[in-house]
Amino acid sequence: MVDRERSAERIERDIETLAGPTYTRSNEAIRRYAYTPEYRATLDYFTAALRELGFEVSEDPVGTLFARNRPPGEKVFGIGSHCDSNRNGGKYDGTMGVVTALEVCRLNAELGYDLPLQLVSFLEEEGSGFGQMLLGSRIMLQRVTEEELRDTFRAIDDGRPFWEHAADAGYQPERWQESIHVLDDLSGWIEMHIEQARVLQDTGNRIGIVNAIAGYVHADITVTGRADHAGATPMDFRLDPGVVAAECILELERLARAAGKGTVGTVGEIEFHPSLINVVPASARFSLDVRGTDEDSFRGVAAEIATFAEQAAAKRGMTAEFKQRQTLPATPMDEGIVGALETAARETGEPFMVMPSGAAHDTMCVADRVPTAMVFVPCKDGISHSPLEDASPADAALAAEIILNAIRSLQ
Amino acid sequence: MVDRERSAERIERDIETLAGPTYTRSNEAIRRYAYTPEYRATLDYFTAALRELGFEVSEDPVGTLFARNRPPGEKVFGIGSHCDSNRNGGKYDGTMGVVTALEVCRLNAELGYDLPLQLVSFLEEEGSGFGQMLLGSRIMLQRVTEEELRDTFRAIDDGRPFWEHAADAGYQPERWQESIHVLDDLSGWIEMHIEQARVLQDTGNRIGIVNAIAGYVHADITVTGRADHAGATPMDFRLDPGVVAAECILELERLARAAGKGTVGTVGEIEFHPSLINVVPASARFSLDVRGTDEDSFRGVAAEIATFAEQAAAKRGMTAEFKQRQTLPATPMDEGIVGALETAARETGEPFMVMPSGAAHDTMCVADRVPTAMVFVPCKDGISHSPLEDASPADAALAAEIILNAIRSLQ
Repeated sequence: MVDRERSAERIERDIETLAGPTYTRSNEAIRRYAYTPEYRATLDYFTAALRELGFEVSEDPVGTLFARNRPPGEKVFGIGSHCDSNRNGGKYDGTMGVVTALEVCRLNAELGYDLPLQLVSFLEEEGSGFGQMLLGSRIMLQRVTEEELRDTFRAIDDGRPFWEHAADAGYQPERWQESIHVLDDLSGWIEMHIEQARVLQDTGNRIGIVNAIAGYVHADITVTGRADHAGATPMDFRLDPGVVAAECILELERLARAAGKGTVGTVGEIEFHPSLINVVPASARFSLDVRGTDEDSFRGVAAEIATFAEQAAAKRGMTAEFKQRQTLPATPMDEGIVGALETAARETGEPFMVMPSGAAHDTMCVADRVPTAMVFVPCKDGISHSPLEDASPADAALAAEIILNAIRSLQ
Repeated sequence: MVDRERSAERIERDIETLAGPTYTRSNEAIRRYAYTPEYRATLDYFTAALRELGFEVSEDPVGTLFARNRPPGEKVFGIGSHCDSNRNGGKYDGTMGVVTALEVCRLNAELGYDLPLQLVSFLEEEGSGFGQMLLGSRIMLQRVTEEELRDTFRAIDDGRPFWEHAADAGYQPERWQESIHVLDDLSGWIEMHIEQARVLQDTGNRIGIVNAIAGYVHADITVTGRADHAGATPMDFRLDPGVVAAECILELERLARAAGKGTVGTVGEIEFHPSLINVVPASARFSLDVRGTDEDSFRGVAAEIATFAEQAAAKRGMTAEFKQRQTLPATPMDEGIVGALETAARETGEPFMVMPSGAAHDTMCVADRVPTAMVFVPCKDGISHSPLEDASPADAALAAEIILNAIRSLQ
C-alpha cells in the first residue's frame, strides 16, 4: 500500500527546494532554462536523487536528462516531463511532473516492485532559452534541422546560436541526432503535468487521464477596409474592417461550440490600424487559435472561419486574408495505457475523469515512437505560466500511485 | 461677375506657395504649427497679401491673426479658418479656408463691393504644437484656464509650457483673455474648409453648406474577463472579454444606424490583454467615438452602448466599465446665414447640398458669440490629415463666390 501522505510530503519538499534561489534566476518567479547555472543545479538535484535509488543517470547530446534502473537493451517504461520554466513561471508547470516521476521511482523501490523504469526530463519545453517550444523533444524526434540548431535558433539573452550555447555547456550538439536513442527501449510513456486550465477544479476531479492531445491551427486574419474620418463619414459610406473582425470573433465562438468534441477557438490578439479614436480603421488583424482532438472538427472550424471572414468582408465591400502561422495534428494517446490508468484511478476511489489536453506537451513528440498517455492534476483557477500557479502535492501523490499501479498492470 | 477661373488660379498659387519649403518643417508633408519659423512665414504671407488690399492686420495676444477693412467699432463680417497643419498633413486642411477667405477679400475689392470684412486665421487648430485641438479659438472663447496655459499645455517638441513658447515668440500670453475682443464687431462668420470625408465626392456635389457641427462623446469601454489557456479551456469554461467587445462593436453599428439623423459611432482602437495568440484575453478595451448633430440621438447612442456593454458582459459573467474621455455639444449653425449661402449656391447653378459637419472646427467656438455657418468643398476620397490630401482650387473659387454673395445679401 502506498503511503500517500508521505509521498505528498516528499513531493512538496522537492517542489519547494526547487523553488529556492539556487534553482531560479528571478526572485519573483521561477525562471529556469537551458544552460544556466540554475538549470544545471536542477538537473543535479534529480541526478543525485535518482542515483540514490540506483538509477544510471545520463544526458543526451544536448542536455535532456534520462535515468534508468535497467541496462541498455532491456525494456523500460518511461515517465517524466520537463523541469525548465517559462520566464515568469510557477513552481509546478513541468517540474511537478518530473518530481512525481521521481516519486514513482521511490515508491517502486520502497514497495519492492522493481519495475523497469526510465525517467526523462526534457530540455527546453517552454522555449525560455531559445524561443522554441518543445525543443528537447523535437530534437529527439528529429523534428528540427541542423541549420536551425546551428544558426536559426538563437538565445533570447544574447542572440548567440543554440549550437554554441550547447557546446559551451559541455554538450555535443553535433551528435544531436543520437538523441532519438533515449526512446529505444521504451515500452510505454506516461507524463504527469498540471492541467493549466480549470476543468478538473471546476468539475471536482483530482485526476485527469488524457486520451488525446489537441492539434491546432494558429493563423491570422487581416481584413482590409478604408480609413475614414470617424465624425465626418456617415455609416453608409464606411468600409470598417473592425466590424467584420467583430463578426468573425462571434462566428468563431459559434463554430467552435457547434463543432463540439472539445473543439475550441480563440481570438487572443487583435489590432486595428491606424488605431485612433477618431478614425475608422483601415485594417484589422486578429489571431486565431483553433484546437481539438478531432482533426476534422478543428480543421473544419479553421477552414470555415476563413471562408466566413472572406464572405463577411465581401458583403461589406472589403477583403479578408487568412494566413496560417503553424499547425500540428492531434495526438491520440494509447488506448491500452489510458485503460490501465483508468483502472488504477478507479481503484483509488478518488474522483477522476478522462479528458483531452488542449495544451501541447513533450508527449506529442514521444507519441511518434512510443505508446503514450498523460495524467493531469488540477491547478488552482487554471492559472499557469505565472508565479501565482498553484497545485496540490497530495494530488501529485495520488497521480504517482496511479501511474505506478498502471505501469505495474502493464508489465 | 466673378471670374472663377482667375480666382482658382490665385487660390492655387497661394496653396502651392504655402506648400513650399519656407512654410513646412517636413519634406514629405505639410508640418506647420505655432511659434515656428514656418508658421511665422505663413502669417507673414497672409499679412502682406491683406495689407495690399488695404486691410489693417493684427494678431491677438497669443498669435491668432485677424485683419479688417473697417476701423474698430464698425461691424464686419468674419471669414477665415486656420493655417496650421497636423504633423503629417496636407496642403488643404485649414490653409485652403484662409486662402479662400483671402480670395473673398480680393473679389470684394475688385468688384468694388466694399463689404465690411474681417479675416481670421486661428492659432493651433490641429494641436500639433501643444497637443491641444482648437487651441486658438478655445483661448478666444475663454474655454481654457490660465493654469492650463501656464503649465498644463506643453510643447510636444520640448515639453516646455505654452506660456513660455508664446512669450518667446513675442506674444503676451498674460493678456490672453483679451483675445475675445477679436469677435467684438462680428455680425456673422463663415468658415470654409475641406470636407474631410467623401460625401460630397460620392454624391457629386461641389459645395456643402453646413447647417450644424456634430457634438461628440469620446469614451472607452473596458470589459474584464479572465485569462485562460486557449487550448486547455473548453468553450463553456471561459470568460472571454473579446467576445463581449465584438458584440459591442456590432451593437454600436446597429444603434448608430437606428438613431439616424446623421448619428455615427466608431470603434477606432481596440486592445486585448495580454494579447497572446494562445491565451483567452483577461480584458478588452475599445474606444468609442459617437457623434451627431442631434444631441438626444448621439448622447442616446453613447448611453445605450454603455448599458449594452454592461448587460452583455453580465450575461457572460463579466463586467464592463464605460469611461468618458471628453464630450462636446452639437453646434447648430445660424439659419439666416445658412439660408443666404443656399441662395447664393443655387444662383451659381452648381451642385451643392446642405449637410452636417462630423468633424470639429474653430467655428464651434465662434458660434458661442456670433451667428455662424460653414462651407465645405470636396476632398479626394475623403483623405485628410495626410500628404495625400487633395482638393480642387476650382471648387474653392466657387466657394469664395458663394461666400461673397451670401455676405453681400446679408448686409
